[in-house]
Amino acid sequence: MCGIVGISDSPQAAQLAHLGLFALQHRGQESAGIVAAWRGELRPHVGMGLVSEVFTRAALQSLTGESAIGHVRYSTTGASHVKNAQPLLFKTTHGPVAIAHNGNLTNAARLRRSLEHRGAIFQSDTDTEIIAHLLAREPGPLEEAVIASLRQVEGSGCLLLLAPDQLIAARDPYGFRPLVLGELGGAFILASETSALNLLKARYVREIEPGEVVVVRGGKVSSRKPFPPAPLTRCVFEQIYLARPDSLIFGRNVQAVRREMGRELARQTKGLKADVVVPVPDSGVSAALGFSDESGIPFEMGLVRSHYVSRTFIKPSQELREIAAELKLAPVHETLQGKRVVLVDDSIVRGTTSMKIAKSLRRAGAREVHMAVSCPPIVSPCHYGIDTPRDEELIAARHSVAEIQRFLEVDSLNYLELERLLRAAGGGDPAGFCTACYTGKYPTPIPDFERTAKVRKGRKAAAG
Amino acid sequence: MCGIVGISDSPQAAQLAHLGLFALQHRGQESAGIVAAWRGELRPHVGMGLVSEVFTRAALQSLTGESAIGHVRYSTTGASHVKNAQPLLFKTTHGPVAIAHNGNLTNAARLRRSLEHRGAIFQSDTDTEIIAHLLAREPGPLEEAVIASLRQVEGSGCLLLLAPDQLIAARDPYGFRPLVLGELGGAFILASETSALNLLKARYVREIEPGEVVVVRGGKVSSRKPFPPAPLTRCVFEQIYLARPDSLIFGRNVQAVRREMGRELARQTKGLKADVVVPVPDSGVSAALGFSDESGIPFEMGLVRSHYVSRTFIKPSQELREIAAELKLAPVHETLQGKRVVLVDDSIVRGTTSMKIAKSLRRAGAREVHMAVSCPPIVSPCHYGIDTPRDEELIAARHSVAEIQRFLEVDSLNYLELERLLRAAGGGDPAGFCTACYTGKYPTPIPDFERTAKVRKGRKAAAG
Amino acid sequence: MCGIVGISDSPQAAQLAHLGLFALQHRGQESAGIVAAWRGELRPHVGMGLVSEVFTRAALQSLTGESAIGHVRYSTTGASHVKNAQPLLFKTTHGPVAIAHNGNLTNAARLRRSLEHRGAIFQSDTDTEIIAHLLAREPGPLEEAVIASLRQVEGSGCLLLLAPDQLIAARDPYGFRPLVLGELGGAFILASETSALNLLKARYVREIEPGEVVVVRGGKVSSRKPFPPAPLTRCVFEQIYLARPDSLIFGRNVQAVRREMGRELARQTKGLKADVVVPVPDSGVSAALGFSDESGIPFEMGLVRSHYVSRTFIKPSQELREIAAELKLAPVHETLQGKRVVLVDDSIVRGTTSMKIAKSLRRAGAREVHMAVSCPPIVSPCHYGIDTPRDEELIAARHSVAEIQRFLEVDSLNYLELERLLRAAGGGDPAGFCTACYTGKYPTPIPDFERTAKVRKGRKAAAG
Amino acid sequence: MCGIVGISDSPQAAQLAHLGLFALQHRGQESAGIVAAWRGELRPHVGMGLVSEVFTRAALQSLTGESAIGHVRYSTTGASHVKNAQPLLFKTTHGPVAIAHNGNLTNAARLRRSLEHRGAIFQSDTDTEIIAHLLAREPGPLEEAVIASLRQVEGSGCLLLLAPDQLIAARDPYGFRPLVLGELGGAFILASETSALNLLKARYVREIEPGEVVVVRGGKVSSRKPFPPAPLTRCVFEQIYLARPDSLIFGRNVQAVRREMGRELARQTKGLKADVVVPVPDSGVSAALGFSDESGIPFEMGLVRSHYVSRTFIKPSQELREIAAELKLAPVHETLQGKRVVLVDDSIVRGTTSMKIAKSLRRAGAREVHMAVSCPPIVSPCHYGIDTPRDEELIAARHSVAEIQRFLEVDSLNYLELERLLRAAGGGDPAGFCTACYTGKYPTPIPDFERTAKVRKGRKAAAG
Repeated sequence: MCGIVGISDSPQAAQLAHLGLFALQHRGQESAGIVAAWRGELRPHVGMGLVSEVFTRAALQSLTGESAIGHVRYSTTGASHVKNAQPLLFKTTHGPVAIAHNGNLTNAARLRRSLEHRGAIFQSDTDTEIIAHLLAREPGPLEEAVIASLRQVEGSGCLLLLAPDQLIAARDPYGFRPLVLGELGGAFILASETSALNLLKARYVREIEPGEVVVVRGGKVSSRKPFPPAPLTRCVFEQIYLARPDSLIFGRNVQAVRREMGRELARQTKGLKADVVVPVPDSGVSAALGFSDESGIPFEMGLVRSHYVSRTFIKPSQELREIAAELKLAPVHETLQGKRVVLVDDSIVRGTTSMKIAKSLRRAGAREVHMAVSCPPIVSPCHYGIDTPRDEELIAARHSVAEIQRFLEVDSLNYLELERLLRAAGGGDPAGFCTACYTGKYPTPIPDFERTAKVRKGRKAAAG
Repeated sequence: MCGIVGISDSPQAAQLAHLGLFALQHRGQESAGIVAAWRGELRPHVGMGLVSEVFTRAALQSLTGESAIGHVRYSTTGASHVKNAQPLLFKTTHGPVAIAHNGNLTNAARLRRSLEHRGAIFQSDTDTEIIAHLLAREPGPLEEAVIASLRQVEGSGCLLLLAPDQLIAARDPYGFRPLVLGELGGAFILASETSALNLLKARYVREIEPGEVVVVRGGKVSSRKPFPPAPLTRCVFEQIYLARPDSLIFGRNVQAVRREMGRELARQTKGLKADVVVPVPDSGVSAALGFSDESGIPFEMGLVRSHYVSRTFIKPSQELREIAAELKLAPVHETLQGKRVVLVDDSIVRGTTSMKIAKSLRRAGAREVHMAVSCPPIVSPCHYGIDTPRDEELIAARHSVAEIQRFLEVDSLNYLELERLLRAAGGGDPAGFCTACYTGKYPTPIPDFERTAKVRKGRKAAAG
Repeated sequence: MCGIVGISDSPQAAQLAHLGLFALQHRGQESAGIVAAWRGELRPHVGMGLVSEVFTRAALQSLTGESAIGHVRYSTTGASHVKNAQPLLFKTTHGPVAIAHNGNLTNAARLRRSLEHRGAIFQSDTDTEIIAHLLAREPGPLEEAVIASLRQVEGSGCLLLLAPDQLIAARDPYGFRPLVLGELGGAFILASETSALNLLKARYVREIEPGEVVVVRGGKVSSRKPFPPAPLTRCVFEQIYLARPDSLIFGRNVQAVRREMGRELARQTKGLKADVVVPVPDSGVSAALGFSDESGIPFEMGLVRSHYVSRTFIKPSQELREIAAELKLAPVHETLQGKRVVLVDDSIVRGTTSMKIAKSLRRAGAREVHMAVSCPPIVSPCHYGIDTPRDEELIAARHSVAEIQRFLEVDSLNYLELERLLRAAGGGDPAGFCTACYTGKYPTPIPDFERTAKVRKGRKAAAG
Repeated sequence: MCGIVGISDSPQAAQLAHLGLFALQHRGQESAGIVAAWRGELRPHVGMGLVSEVFTRAALQSLTGESAIGHVRYSTTGASHVKNAQPLLFKTTHGPVAIAHNGNLTNAARLRRSLEHRGAIFQSDTDTEIIAHLLAREPGPLEEAVIASLRQVEGSGCLLLLAPDQLIAARDPYGFRPLVLGELGGAFILASETSALNLLKARYVREIEPGEVVVVRGGKVSSRKPFPPAPLTRCVFEQIYLARPDSLIFGRNVQAVRREMGRELARQTKGLKADVVVPVPDSGVSAALGFSDESGIPFEMGLVRSHYVSRTFIKPSQELREIAAELKLAPVHETLQGKRVVLVDDSIVRGTTSMKIAKSLRRAGAREVHMAVSCPPIVSPCHYGIDTPRDEELIAARHSVAEIQRFLEVDSLNYLELERLLRAAGGGDPAGFCTACYTGKYPTPIPDFERTAKVRKGRKAAAG
C-alpha cells in the first residue's frame, strides 16, 4: 500500500505535502515523512507514527523549499523501524536525492545480493534502498540514471524522486498502483489518489500512465515512456478496499464503483430473503447501500464503530477479552433483534474477524446472518504491495466456500463473482486488472518468491 | 456531558471500569480516571486525555480491588487541568471517599462562597469538589451524609461515590441525565449508558429513577427516594446527539429514535424536491436514513469523514486553511455533481460549521443544498451540563430562520418542530423532557446565572 | 530539608525565583515549583523532578508577576507524588494563597484528626496542607490568621506565604532552619541560604530571626515577633552536610566551618600515622583539607566522583552489581597503592556506604584505611526535617564505635567529639544548637512520635 | 574525543559494555550505543543523549550475546543527529558488521568523493561510514578487508569492529588515541581508558600498540602490525584534560601526571606571591594541588561547581544572564575576600570562560588574581579528533600572552612551558607526543584541511 505525494513550484511545498499526506493517511499509518528541497539542499523530517504524530509545528516550519515529496508507510517489506521510514534521503555522485516509493520489487533479493557483491552497504530492509543503490551506480544525468535503474527492477509501484532542481515521477509499466497529476496556481502535484488533490483544491489534470516517467523541472512538465510496453494489470483491490471513497482511481470514483459492486452482489444473490442490510463499517458501507438499492432490503448501521480504540490500547486480560470483543464494532441490539441480516463486507482474509462479527450479531439477537462479500475468495498472496498474508493463513486458499461458511457460522455466504467484480470496477469493461489474488495467476515473473517456494518444497521433500 | 461508570463486587472491578470508559468515551475526551477500593484504601489513577492515553498497563494493574468508579470528562465547569479531572479522591472524617459526577450545579457559586466562609479550602474549580466539602461537614453514616449534602445542591446530574466498603449512586430528582444498572455474574454495574453494559456483556436491569439513591454494599443493592419529587425533565439532547446509537437512553434505543426524527423531518418537509440525502457523519447518519425512508430520496455518504485529524493536529497557515477546509469532512464530487442535496445534521449551534459544509458541497458540484436539522433552533444556553455557548454565540438566539438560511447560503432550511421531536424522543409521548434550549424555559431556578445576568444588566444600565 | 525562596517587588519575580531554586537545588530534588502573583491572581507551575526538568521556557514565561515564591522538595513527610509538591496553592475566604514550607510539624497527626472532625478535606499528605487548613479557619486579616495558625503548630521550619498583595515569611521560634533576607535594586529576596542571594548578586541584609514574622507589602518590610520565646536550637547538620559550601549559615561560611571541623578532627586524632588524606567527595572535601592542614598529611582526591549516574540509572544485575560497585565513586589505584589512608566523611548513617567505600580503597591497594568522621555517632532520628532513618537503621543507635569499626573493616574509626563539633560550628561558642541526633535529647515535645512509640511498645509487650 | 569499549567471550557482553560506557561517558555525551552479536546476527541499540538516557532496562535486555561493542560520541565531524550515532551497523558481502570509531580521518573528503564516484551511497556524515564503504569493497576474509581499508585512510583514532564471529580492534600507527586490553574471567575487554577496566574489576593486560591490529575470535587473541611504522605522536591533551583522573593513559596515571604538571607550573612561576591556590573544578583540581605542594601556598575549593545545570537548562533572559553568571561555578566569598588568588585551569581556548571566572573571583573580593594554566597557549586547531575551534576563535592564535592577560583582566598569566609539560606527561621523557595545537606542526599530511585553506586563501586574494 503506502501513499506518496510530490509538490513542485510552490513556496509552500512542504506544507502542501503535509496536508496531502493527511488525505493519504489511510494508505499507511506506520511512518510518515517529507523531504523538501531548499537552495541546493534536501531536508528531511521522517518519523514513526501518524502524520499528526510525526510533524510538530517546528518540524514543519524547518522544511522550507519550493518542492517536496512525502510518504506514508504501511509496512510490506522491511520491519517496523524508523530506518525503513521514507522518503529515503542519500548522497550519491548525482548529489543529494530523496525517494518515496510505494509497491514491491519482485526481484529484490537477487538485486540486493548482486549489489552487495559489488560493495554496496545496506542500512534498511526496503526495496527503495535497492533502487537508490542502482541509481548511484548509473552515470548521469539523473533522469537517465533513474530510467536505467528502473529498467533493472521488476514488480509494482510508483516512484517519486526529488533532487534539488527537479522532481521525477514514474509509474510501473503494468500500472498496478495509481498515480495522478494535479495543478494548483502554477504548482504541480503528484499523488497516489485524487483525495489529496481535492483537499488542496487542486485541479485534476490526468492519471500518470503505466510506464510513464514525468520530470518537473524549471516550472515545466515533460513526459516519456522509456520502458517496453507491458500488459495492463491494475490492482482491483485499490477500488474494493484500499482507496478512499472520495478518490478517483483508474478514472472512476471509488464510492460509485463500490455501490455498483453491492448492486452486482444483490443481483447475484437474487431471491435471498432478509430484513436488513448491515455493513461492516466503514469500508462495507457503499456496497451495502448498493445491495439495499437493488434488493429493496432496508439498510441500517447495525454495527457502530468506535474511533477510540487506538493502536496503543491495552488489551484486556484473556478473560475480559472474551467479554469485550466488541470494543471496535458494537452491534445495535434493538436494530438487529429477531432480524434476518445481510452482513456486507469488502473481503475475507483470515476469516477470524468475520467470524467474530457474525457471532456478535447473533448474540445481539439476529435470527439469521447472511454474509455477502464484494469480491471473490482470496486464494493467493499478493506480491505487488498489498499486505495479504501467506497461503497458510488465507482461509480461502485451503478451504471451500462451504467450509468457510461453516467456520463463520453464517446461514449463507456469497462472494461476488470475478466477472461481476471486474465489470463493476471497469465501468462495464472487465479488462486490464490484476486478478492474481483470486486466481493465483501472476502477471509478472516473481523470482524471489519462486526461489523461496522451491527451497521450502525441497526441505519438505528432504524431511518427508 | 461526562460519562461515569461504577463496578461493585467483581475481582476485576478496575478492569471492567476501564473497558466501560471506552464505551463512554464519546461523552468526554478531556480527562479520564478510575479509583479502585482495595483493603480499606482507595487508589486513584487519573490523567488528561483519552482513556487509551491515560491508562498504561502498569497503571491499570496497580488498581486492584473489588469495586471501582470511573469518569471521562468533557469540560463544562472548571478549566482544562488535571486538578479538575475526576474521580476526585479526598480524605474526610468519613474516611477516604471518591466521587465521579456528571452534570452541573446551578447554585455552585453560592455554595462555594458559603463554604469558604466556614474555612473550606478549594483546590479545583469543579462542582464535584463542592459536594465533597458538603459531605465532609455532615455527620455520618456516609449514606446519610451523602443525602444531606445532595439536599443542599440544585441542578442536574448523576453521582457515583466510592468508599472502601460501599458504592453509592444517585440521580437528580429531575432526571436530566441517564443512569442505568446492570449485572454481570454477581457484579453490579452502574453506567451513564447501556453501551457500557453491552460491551461488558452485562445484563441490563433497569434505569436508576430520578431522585433515587442506590447503595451497593456487602453484595446487596438497596434503594431509597429521599428527595422531594420534582417534575420529570429529561435532556432530549442526549437522544439527538450526545449518546451512542447503540445505547438505550430513557428506555429507548438512540439509533431508532434518531431514524424516527429523520422520518418526522421528511414528513414535515413533504414536497421537498431533491436527488440525494446526505448526512453530516457520524451523528447525522440515522436521521438521514429515516429521511430517505420516508421521502424515498436515495441516501448517500456524500461526505467522507477522516479519522486522522486529531486534537494535536497542526493547523495549516491561514492561507492554506482556506485551501484545506475539508480535512475532516471531504465531499465526494462524483456523488454530488449536479445534484439537489438534502443535507441532514443533528443541530446547528454557532452555524459556522454548517456554513462551511454547505459551501463545500456546492464547490463539489451540488446544484442545490437543502439543510434539514433534526431539532428546533437552539435559542438559550444549557445550565444542566451541555456545553452550549452563551446566547451571543448561538446563531438562533439572535437570528430568524430566514436569516440563518441566508448565512448558511442554503436553498432551504428546515428545523424539526419541537412537538415532532418530542414525539419521536418519547416514542409517541412528548411529555417529560427539558426543552430549555429551544424555549428558554428552565425547569429549575438558576440562581448563579440570574445573579450574573443581573450584574451584567446593571452594568449596562450604569454605562447607558 | 527542602529549600524555599521568595521574591517581592521585582518585574521578574518568577525568573529570579527560578534562578534562586537552582542555588537551592541541593536541598531537594524530588519536586520543584513556583507560584507567582499577578493582578490579583496566583499562578502555579509545579512538577516532579529537578528545577531544570520541571520548568520549560513556556512554563516560566507564563509566570508573570511582581512577586513569587518557590520550593524544592526533599520528601520527608508525604509520599513522592505531585500532589505533595509545593508551593501548595488553595482558595480560602482570605482569597488565593500559596505556601512553601520547609521543616516538620511534630503535632501534625493530632492537628489533622481534629481538622477532619471539623469537616476539612485533605488532598495531600503534607504538613503544609495542615497549616493551610488552620489558616482557612482563622479570621482575617491574613497576617493575623497566619500568626494564629502558627501558634497552633509545633515543630521546625520556615514558611513563605504568598497572597496577591503581600509576601509573608516566618521562622520557627527555635531557629531550626536558616532563612535570610536580601535586597536587589528595590526587590526583596527571602531564601533558605545565601547561595541564592550570591547567585542573584543580591545584597545580604540579615538572617530572619527565630520566631520572627516578616511581611513585605507595598514595597515595605515590616517585622514582628509574636510568639513566646523558645531556646535557640539551630540544626548543626545544616553546616556539617546539608548546606552549600559557599553559603553563610547561621552567620558563618559553611566551607570555613567544615575546614575547621577537619582541623578539630586532626587535633583529636593527633598521632595518627598516615600517608594521605582522602575525602569522600563532594561533602567531605573541606573537612579533609582541614585535616591535612592540621596533621600535615598530604591531601589527595583518591576517589573520583562520576556525575553521570543519575536517578534513572538502570541497576546492573546482581552479579554485575558486585563487579560495578564503584560506578559513583571510583578509587584512583596509583594514588592509593601501598598507602595508609585517612578517609574523611561528614557522617555515618547506616554504615553500608562507608563500608563499601573502605572496601573499594583496600581493593585499589590501600595498606591501611583510617576513617575520620566530622560529627559524632548519630544515635537518634531527627524529627525536625532531616531525613535520617528510624533507630533500627542507624548503625550507631545499636552498636558501639568498636563494633562499627569492625563492620566497616577499617583500621581505626574516629568520630568528631560533640564539644569540638559545636565549637567549630559556632565559631568558638558551642551554645544554641540542636544535638538531638547525637544525644537523643529533643528540644521540643514530639507528641506524634511518642504516641507511635507507645503503641509500638504496647504491641511488643502484648506479643511478648 | 569519543569513547569505545568492546567485550568478547562473556555471556553478559552487552551488560559489561553498558557499564563500561558509564566509565567512558566523560569522552562523549551526545549519543551512546551498543551492538551485540547473537547467533549470527548483530543487534543495535543506539540513541541521542547520555548512556543513562539511551538505555532503558528493556533495551538492554534485548541485547543478548557473547560479544558487543559500545560507543559514546562527542560530535567532531558530522552534525548532531541520530544517523551519526555509533556503533554504525551495516550489511555487506562480508555479512553484518558494526563499527565503533574514535578519532578523525584527515583524508575523509577525498575518500568520500572517490567512493561516491564509484556508486557509494552515504547516509551519515561520519568518517566511520567511509571506513565501512572501503570495507564493503575489499575482498574477504574480513580481517584482511579491514586492514586493506585502514591502509587507505589517514589520520587518528582507534577502531572496534564487531562481526558475528569475531571482534577486531585497531589503533592508528601514530598512536594518537589510547586503547587498552583487559581480561575478566575469560572475557576480553578493549577500552579507550582503564577507568572501564577498573569499574568492571578487570585485569589490565596492556596497551594496544600503535599500528597494532588485534583479532579476538574463538576465545583467542591474535595480534599483527600490518602497517608501515610511523613516528609516535600521542595526544598530550588526553592527559591534560580529556581522560579521567583514575585512568592510566599511555601507561601513566592521569591524576599523578596532572599533579606533576601543577608542580612544574609552580617551579616555573617561582616567586609568585599569593595567599591561596584555587582550581577551576573539576579538571584543574590535581594541578592546583601540585601547585600548592611545590609553592607551599594553601589550596582551597574557592569555586563550588553545581551539578544541576544540565544541557536542558533554560537560559535566563539577557538581563538576568548577567546577574546569574555563576550558575555553574559559584565563588566562595569568605574564602576569597581580600586574598591574592592563584587560579589554576588546565587550558585556555577562547578565553571567554576564563575571563568570566576571573571576574567572578574579583567580585567575590579577591584582591589579586593570578592565572596559571597547565599547558602552553593553543595556537592551532586539532585535526586528530579534539574539538578545538578554528584559528579565528583560538585566543592564542591571534594574541600575545600579554594581550590575553589584559583580556582576562588578571594580575598575571602563566602558561606551562611545552618542555615542562611533556616532561610531566612522559614521566621525565618528553618524546613521542603530538604538539600540533601548541606549535602548528602537524605530524601527518592534512589534505582536506590544506585544500580548504587554499580555497579560502584564493577567495581572499580574489576579493582583495
